[in-house]
Parts: sequence; structure tokens; C-alpha cells
Amino acid sequence: MRDVAIIGAGMIPFGRRDEDTLMEMLAYAALKALDDAAQSDTGHVLPPIDAVYVANMGGGMLQRQTAIASSLVDRLSLMPAAAETIENGPASGASAVKNGLLAIASGYYDCVLVVGGEKMREVTGWRATDFVATMTHPQAEYPYGITLPGMAGMFTRLYMEQYGVTREHLLAISLKNQEMGTLNPYAHVEMALDRDGIFDSPHSIVNNPVTADPLHLYDLCPVSDGAAAIVLCSLELAKKLSKPPVLIAGFGQATDTQTLQEREDPTDLKAVTIAAQKAFAMANLTPADIHVAELHDAFTILEIAESEHVGFFPKGEGGKAALAGKTRLGGQIPINVSGGLKARGHPVGATGVAQLVDIVWQLRHELPANRQVQGAKNGLTVNFGGFGNNVLAFVLKRVEQ
Amino acid sequence: MRDVAIIGAGMIPFGRRDEDTLMEMLAYAALKALDDAAQSDTGHVLPPIDAVYVANMGGGMLQRQTAIASSLVDRLSLMPAAAETIENGPASGASAVKNGLLAIASGYYDCVLVVGGEKMREVTGWRATDFVATMTHPQAEYPYGITLPGMAGMFTRLYMEQYGVTREHLLAISLKNQEMGTLNPYAHVEMALDRDGIFDSPHSIVNNPVTADPLHLYDLCPVSDGAAAIVLCSLELAKKLSKPPVLIAGFGQATDTQTLQEREDPTDLKAVTIAAQKAFAMANLTPADIHVAELHDAFTILEIAESEHVGFFPKGEGGKAALAGKTRLGGQIPINVSGGLKARGHPVGATGVAQLVDIVWQLRHELPANRQVQGAKNGLTVNFGGFGNNVLAFVLKRVEQ
Repeated sequence: MRDVAIIGAGMIPFGRRDEDTLMEMLAYAALKALDDAAQSDTGHVLPPIDAVYVANMGGGMLQRQTAIASSLVDRLSLMPAAAETIENGPASGASAVKNGLLAIASGYYDCVLVVGGEKMREVTGWRATDFVATMTHPQAEYPYGITLPGMAGMFTRLYMEQYGVTREHLLAISLKNQEMGTLNPYAHVEMALDRDGIFDSPHSIVNNPVTADPLHLYDLCPVSDGAAAIVLCSLELAKKLSKPPVLIAGFGQATDTQTLQEREDPTDLKAVTIAAQKAFAMANLTPADIHVAELHDAFTILEIAESEHVGFFPKGEGGKAALAGKTRLGGQIPINVSGGLKARGHPVGATGVAQLVDIVWQLRHELPANRQVQGAKNGLTVNFGGFGNNVLAFVLKRVEQ
Repeated sequence: MRDVAIIGAGMIPFGRRDEDTLMEMLAYAALKALDDAAQSDTGHVLPPIDAVYVANMGGGMLQRQTAIASSLVDRLSLMPAAAETIENGPASGASAVKNGLLAIASGYYDCVLVVGGEKMREVTGWRATDFVATMTHPQAEYPYGITLPGMAGMFTRLYMEQYGVTREHLLAISLKNQEMGTLNPYAHVEMALDRDGIFDSPHSIVNNPVTADPLHLYDLCPVSDGAAAIVLCSLELAKKLSKPPVLIAGFGQATDTQTLQEREDPTDLKAVTIAAQKAFAMANLTPADIHVAELHDAFTILEIAESEHVGFFPKGEGGKAALAGKTRLGGQIPINVSGGLKARGHPVGATGVAQLVDIVWQLRHELPANRQVQGAKNGLTVNFGGFGNNVLAFVLKRVEQ
């Protein structure tokens, strides 16, 4: 396998973007990533884009638009570049990156563009939840009305009983990620949470109502519009550019049963463990080598559970570690410095790509001091599809030139 | 790049399959391909399936089901194999194969399953046409009501004027492909056409009405349910199996403007030409080396135009060649011996995979005499997305053991 590096990264602010079409969001993010790569190309060594991979889940259902990758290639005047849309629920972004990665690793392509995007705010309230629920089991789950927040609630209750996770632990994730969101110009949620207002006071029942017991409103990510993009090429080419290349040192993916109830221990997120182990093995690194991580905190419990399953903390210690500040900027392992899905937002097709964009910025040391992990060299991302039935992990590594 | 071969192929009969869910169709086709590969594995050398690529266009819109690749992996008990859904309109099938091909070529995976399927009969009449029209331009085409048959009609008229294609030429494709369909147990349309009844007689206006002038009903492929699957592995592994491996010797893909009117010459299907040229160059073969081809005849004119653009005939000669029988079984270059999209049917996600399945059967010499191209060693497929704005071509080659 040829080594593959990220040489361009770009994102548009997540949130409510009524003024943009899905195609416009994809194009804006793509142009930012392409421009970023071009700025690095001082010696004009980069070849044209060979292929475009678009991550999107709901174009057909929400925008009544299919074959959007072919459309984007035209919009960006990249013909005759190849193009496909990759769909893997909320892990669509990482799946698109994976296919770009392996295509360059094979030697067939030299330079590819990966764009993830979703325009979800066209459906709100229960319709947005119902859209996401289309990834549940069509016979065993969907007809009975189970939703992803519902699954997360039951998963949280089990996790609390089995590992002693508390509401205080979950709250630590909400507070940390929304605080970081206020510092991130790309974040959907820019409001810091007041601990008292959402937890201790009599108003908390109004401000932070139960949504899927024991999860409350601020345990859930918002429904967002947004897009993010990266440019990939061989490490050999990347080394000729002016910005430090970010090597995709490790990649892992694993699936699990579609329904939670079929898993021997529903709190055991096997696909997260296997995906992370594969990524670490390929990178020849361990969890202790990682300086910054973007985990898939669609629900606060997931950041805790994933921080344990990838190996940052022993089982049952993730919540305590978060409460003790070990996952904050400056802590043992800063997690979701971007604000995570919780604050940056979760436009499903965009998320897996956005995670890589944030880690690229960290490893290039391009962020302002209040968001930069000092001297970060290795990063980890986890993109979580379904309820943990299709998970992808990447280990990224700064290459010194 | 590692050489990659097809070692398993399977299909379920296309047509109206009200009794099956989309997941069942995908699973049935997958099991047939897996079983085919297993039968070849007399020395038990095959590793487990590393990844599954599912080609599907309308799961979200028609079945309200997303992340179907993850669901299929569970249905087939292939966990923790990786999984993604690939969407590229009517070229989704070939796009899924491409991603499986490059993943093995990279060395990351050893053995992958590619499944394409679509359940389209849940919407019929104008709703099926409208579903397919979601791949048209969202501002410049879709709101004005243009459909794929409408585009094909205008394209045909231009082609007639520019190259002298006649209704007799188009009819030759309908007659040939529906005749071959009667011999194919997997074909949706099993009815041979009576030339007199649909062309010359006074009844033809009733039996074969104009659908998109100058195209008539029998110039169009049907709306079908169906699924097809292949198993891919490295050629090195494939050589240890009992059945002759079919090498993916060449692959090419190209995009073009989304709208026909933006092309300098709308009759010039540049993406077909480029995709085929790339595939031939990679295989180090020429059109004259091909013994059997599956072209994307969603409309009769496309078989004629593609037979010219890939290099079988000079521009303007494809229709005459078809009328002279040069593309029939036993002719210079047999095209769509399966019956093509015209008779086998066109469940959009399945088509690109089904084309490869039919060529694999041809190159393994497994078909009955009335459908087998004697001694076929090299085959070509063309999968046509949008109206020629995303085209993929494969050159397959029988490897003697």
C-alpha cells in the first residue's frame, strides 16, 4: 500500500443554512479544501483531481436529489474526474474517506477530493429523528417506533447500571463540548451551558428536559446543515508541498449486529474496539501515543463509552476521567476540542470528514491557542454508524518535512 | 496495483418481486455469489469476506431504508466485515465494483463481496420515471419536468439527423435483445417481439406507442426489481481455485456535464469514450480483442451510440451494424447476449453488477449453447450513469489455469 496523506482541509460553518442548497454547501466546502491544498502547492507539483467521493445520507429523501457526486464534479468543473456518493448512515463521511484512501493506496489515483455534507434542517422535530431512524432494522426496530435517541437512552441506563456512570459524568461532556463550541467559528451551537441552569436549579426541568430517559436535551447533538472536505494524495507527492502533510497512518472499520438486543453485552461496542485496534495496529501506535481525538458524541454517553473502547481509559473510567478534566484541552487526552457533534453539530454525511478536518488543523498547529493542543503530532477519529453497527477509525500523524 | 479477479457471480431473476424485501433480494444474490465462490474453493484457501460494497440508488426514497450495507452484513452474518453503500445513479453497480476492485488492489483487503440491487416496482408509471429523474439537474432540469426518456428522445432525434440512424436500426436492437431475453432465465421481459405487430402493421400504434418521440415503448427498458452479486479477490488467490478466474484487466471511469445542452456536441458521449479508452489502455487490449460485451441499453439508441463510442464501429455505423446482425450471437461482436437492460431489466443499483455476472458466465463458458459466445476470452461492460455524465467501463479477461 502506498502511504496516503491529507493535503487540503476545509469546512463551512455548521448550523442552519436555509440560504444554501445541498450542492452549494458541498461545493463551498470542496473549494475551501482545494484552495487549502493549492496554497501549499508552491512548486506546482499537484496533478488534477482524479476522483471525487461524496458522503451523504439523505439527498434522495430530503432533497429528492440522487447522483449528487456526478453533479458536484460538474459544479466544480472537475470533469472527467470519477465520482461516487458513499452512504453509511452517520459514518458516511469516514466511509467516503476510506474509499478515497484505498483508491490512492492502490496506485490507481494520485489525487482525490472527499466531500461530506448534509442538509437536514429541511426536516425538523420528529421528522429529523424519523429520517435518522431509517437506519434502524426495517422489521425488528423501525415499525415499533424506536429512534436513535431512544436506543441511546436505553444504552445509557445499562451503562450507568453496569459501570456506575452518573448524570454528573454525562454533564461533564455537555459542559466541556459546548464550552469548546463557543470558541469554534464552525460550530452550530455557540452557547456555553450554565451548569446551574440545566442541572441543579428548579428551572433545569424546563431548560433541559428529559428527551430519552436518562438522557436530557443537552445530552443530544443538534440537527445541523453543514459540509466538510479534504484533499488526499500520495505521501510522496505531499512531501513536496509547503504545509506539513498529515499521514493517514492507520485505518480500521468493523460492523456489529444491526440491533442492540442481539449483542451478548449491549454495552460492549465491539465495532468501536475492533475499528480502533485495526487503526492503531496499522499505524504501529497505541492509545497512549495519541495527542488529540475527535470521537462521535452524538449522545454524551457515546463520548464516554468510546473513550474507553478505543483504549484511552479502562471500562467504567471514562465518565470519571471526563469529570476530572482529563479529556479537556490541556488534559491527559483532549477529546472533541472542536466541540464535537454536540456543539459543532452533526450533519450526518459531513461529520466523519469534519472530524478529520479538525484533526488536520490540530496536527498542523493552525488553531488559535485557546483551541490548539500544543505540539500535537498524532490524532484519532471515530465515526460511529447506526448504533455502533458500523464504525470507522483513523489514526492521523503529522509528518515533519 | 495487485491484480484482482472475480471468483464468484450470482443473480436472482429480475422482474416484479413483490414477495421479497430489498434486503432479501440483496441477500439472495449475495448468497448465490458466495456459494459460487465456495464451490470453487476446493482447497479451502479463501479467507473470510473483508468488506461488502452495496450498490443501491433508491433505498432511502423507495423503501425508507438507509445504511443498507450495514444491515446486509448482519443479514449474511459477515460481521465484523466492513460495509458501505455506493450510489451513482444507474451506474451505482459499476461504482461499487470499482471501490471493491481498488480496495483489493491496494492490498488492504483480500476478499470482498459486491452486491447491487433495487426494488423499483413499488413505484410504477410516472412515479418510477420521476424517481429516476432525481438524478437530473436540480435547478436546470428537474423543475421543468424533463425525464430520462425525454432526454433519450431528444438525443435520438439528434443522432438520427447527424448520423442517419433510422427506426429500423433501433428496432433491430429491440428485436435482438428481447429475443435473447426469452433465452435468459434471469430476464424480466421474456416475450419475443413480433416485428410486424410493433412496427409495420396498423396495430403497431397501439402495441408500441410513442413514449418519447422518436422512441416508442419497446425502445425503453422496463422498470424492474432485481439484484446481482460478485466476489472479488486477488488474482494470486483466485489462481488456487478450481474455476477459471476472471481478471478485471481494465477499468475506466469518466464524467461529463450534468446537462446535455452544455455539451458542445450532445451526440458525443465523451464519458463513454474516455471510460472505455482508459479500460482498454489498462488492459492493454483494443476493441477488436473483445469477444462479448454488455452495453447499457436503457434506450435502444444507447446500445447503438455506445457500440460506436467504445470503438466497435465508426460513428454512424452502429445502427447499420446492428441491422446487419453484426452484434448478434455469432456476429462480429455479440452485444447484450443477456438481453441487456432492455430485456434482462434495469433495477438501477443491480445493473452494473449484473453486467459483470453475465460476462463472467460467458468467459467461464458456463452458458447453454444458445447463449454462449464460443471460446470467449475477453469481455467489456459499460455502465452509464445520468445521461452519460458518469460512465464506467470494465475489461474482463479469462485467465487460463
